[in-house]
Amino acid sequence: MSAEQEIPKRTEISELGEFALIDQLTKDFKIHHSSTLKGIGDDAAVIRQEDQCTLITTDMMIEGIHFDLAYFPLKHLGYKSIISNLSDIYAMNGIPEQVVVSIAVSNRFSVEALDVLYEGMKLACDEYKVDLVGGDTTASLRGLVISITAIGKQQEQKISYRSGAKPGDHIFVSGQLGAAYLGLQLLEREKQVYLSTPGIQPNLEDQKYLVGKFLKPEAKKETIYWFDKAGIVPTSMIDLSDGLSSDLMHICKQSKVGAELVEQLIPMHIDVKMMALKFHMDPLTCALNGGEDYELLMTFSPHDSEKARLLPELYYIGEIKEASFGVQLKGTSGKLHELKAQGWKHF
Amino acid sequence: MSAEQEIPKRTEISELGEFALIDQLTKDFKIHHSSTLKGIGDDAAVIRQEDQCTLITTDMMIEGIHFDLAYFPLKHLGYKSIISNLSDIYAMNGIPEQVVVSIAVSNRFSVEALDVLYEGMKLACDEYKVDLVGGDTTASLRGLVISITAIGKQQEQKISYRSGAKPGDHIFVSGQLGAAYLGLQLLEREKQVYLSTPGIQPNLEDQKYLVGKFLKPEAKKETIYWFDKAGIVPTSMIDLSDGLSSDLMHICKQSKVGAELVEQLIPMHIDVKMMALKFHMDPLTCALNGGEDYELLMTFSPHDSEKARLLPELYYIGEIKEASFGVQLKGTSGKLHELKAQGWKHF
Repeated sequence: MSAEQEIPKRTEISELGEFALIDQLTKDFKIHHSSTLKGIGDDAAVIRQEDQCTLITTDMMIEGIHFDLAYFPLKHLGYKSIISNLSDIYAMNGIPEQVVVSIAVSNRFSVEALDVLYEGMKLACDEYKVDLVGGDTTASLRGLVISITAIGKQQEQKISYRSGAKPGDHIFVSGQLGAAYLGLQLLEREKQVYLSTPGIQPNLEDQKYLVGKFLKPEAKKETIYWFDKAGIVPTSMIDLSDGLSSDLMHICKQSKVGAELVEQLIPMHIDVKMMALKFHMDPLTCALNGGEDYELLMTFSPHDSEKARLLPELYYIGEIKEASFGVQLKGTSGKLHELKAQGWKHF
Repeated sequence: MSAEQEIPKRTEISELGEFALIDQLTKDFKIHHSSTLKGIGDDAAVIRQEDQCTLITTDMMIEGIHFDLAYFPLKHLGYKSIISNLSDIYAMNGIPEQVVVSIAVSNRFSVEALDVLYEGMKLACDEYKVDLVGGDTTASLRGLVISITAIGKQQEQKISYRSGAKPGDHIFVSGQLGAAYLGLQLLEREKQVYLSTPGIQPNLEDQKYLVGKFLKPEAKKETIYWFDKAGIVPTSMIDLSDGLSSDLMHICKQSKVGAELVEQLIPMHIDVKMMALKFHMDPLTCALNGGEDYELLMTFSPHDSEKARLLPELYYIGEIKEASFGVQLKGTSGKLHELKAQGWKHF
């Protein structure tokens, strides 16, 4: 009777990790339509319709895995859940236009609580001019599940894939790094204080920048706007959700290239440096491995790089190399260090 | 510290029901793009690009709410999860071309189990010629969550909305009804037998039709194909996921019309009639209120109805009336009975 008992061998999901698991599950799927320019493996899928392409990306967030409602206000959660999907469309150099939102909720949640969640989503939809065009609302046995699909568009020749970086291209990032990670550390610490001494209210007023970067991140629509204004298209692009090291490795792997980052060029806010020291952490580690910054990481040809350097809030941080070079960081002393990808911690 | 405590009033989700909840949550969202022809409220959203439109629909399935792995083999679950989304695209008279699939799984599931789930999805993708173009794979604290978005296309003038039915239009259904509901009842009964006497294997061999309609339903791509061949477009259409009564009411509400169904015209397989009697149920109740048949319910103008009657597996079951008529069933005696929508049972 039990359907699960029919499967003899057992490999734990944690043995594979996220990306190997996706490869394993989807390797036999065929593409049936020539209009499907890009399927699995980038920030978004690309479907051609005449000259214009449709971009599609999706994300699922699970309570207790991706967010903790003890310190994540529902309104911010709604906002961030939209933002993280729009960020994937921008990471293709695309313009997001629609979203569909599915949620599963247990009866622990009231209608008023869901109203607050959707208020945050609406704020993001208005701010980024995207239309909520559908979804599904269903019950869950426990906890909140949010699944969002974002749809965007761009002309075929302006789409930036992860696979287009070439040796000699210059690497840029759209903003300062590491803040979201430290914001999360602060909130986790306050939660522990609160749990051990209920009634104590946290004082995070002087850490608005770090906490704000975690609780209310923005997607980089201005960055895409400036590229268009300047008439330049990144040779490759990805959004920073896992961290600079991991995400740069995605670009290098898919472009079959190496990369050299320069330590003193990696942009960090003064609050990141101060708080990292307070936590006895290396600020550079926070900038390299802290996730959820939702900045864009991209490469430009040396020719376009000259224009890119003139754009607001765009930081040159290194150069694409041959694959044999690997992915390395040049320290302040000039010494090279190999970069490592972060693991997948959810399983 | 607790984000949930900030919300003063508490209305239970069960007080509203699914459709009122969706209305409540989404009523303040604005549409920013003129290309968004249809947002929330039909089987799929419609986005115009030149003459061609993109159709988008999404569904979320939760273990313990929408399926029970005790009797739902993972391969069938994968197949059905794709089918139920494609059905929503067909219900717009559209052609599905892509899907994105997100899953959340606990460590109870092995890689091999997920492989079997995706094998079922692949079967459906190959059978219906749709491309898997993306998704998200993440951890859950408990149970399996599947969220799928399907993307399709159709020319603007060929799209069938729920809102286009006119008094005098003829009502059709694409196949026999009630089987999926009875298939589920059979499986539930066998599960109870199995739980009380472990080791006993169920014998469902002679009920392949009913069980198959529940475990491995098909979406009605042929129906859409025949409409195109015959050069007819339904004035309204919906897929039967909640049941004939409920889904006809969606059409009537959105088209601002009434309807009369004729009891003896409602198509039922002989196995449905036999099994309903065995369960001491009225077969008609199964056909009217049993969900998950994934047949299409549509209306045609009297002119197109003549052609529709010639198409394979298309059953004429009644007529659209003025709104003041309500939604009624004409019994075998000629007497009219008001139809009632089924409630939302998940909360």
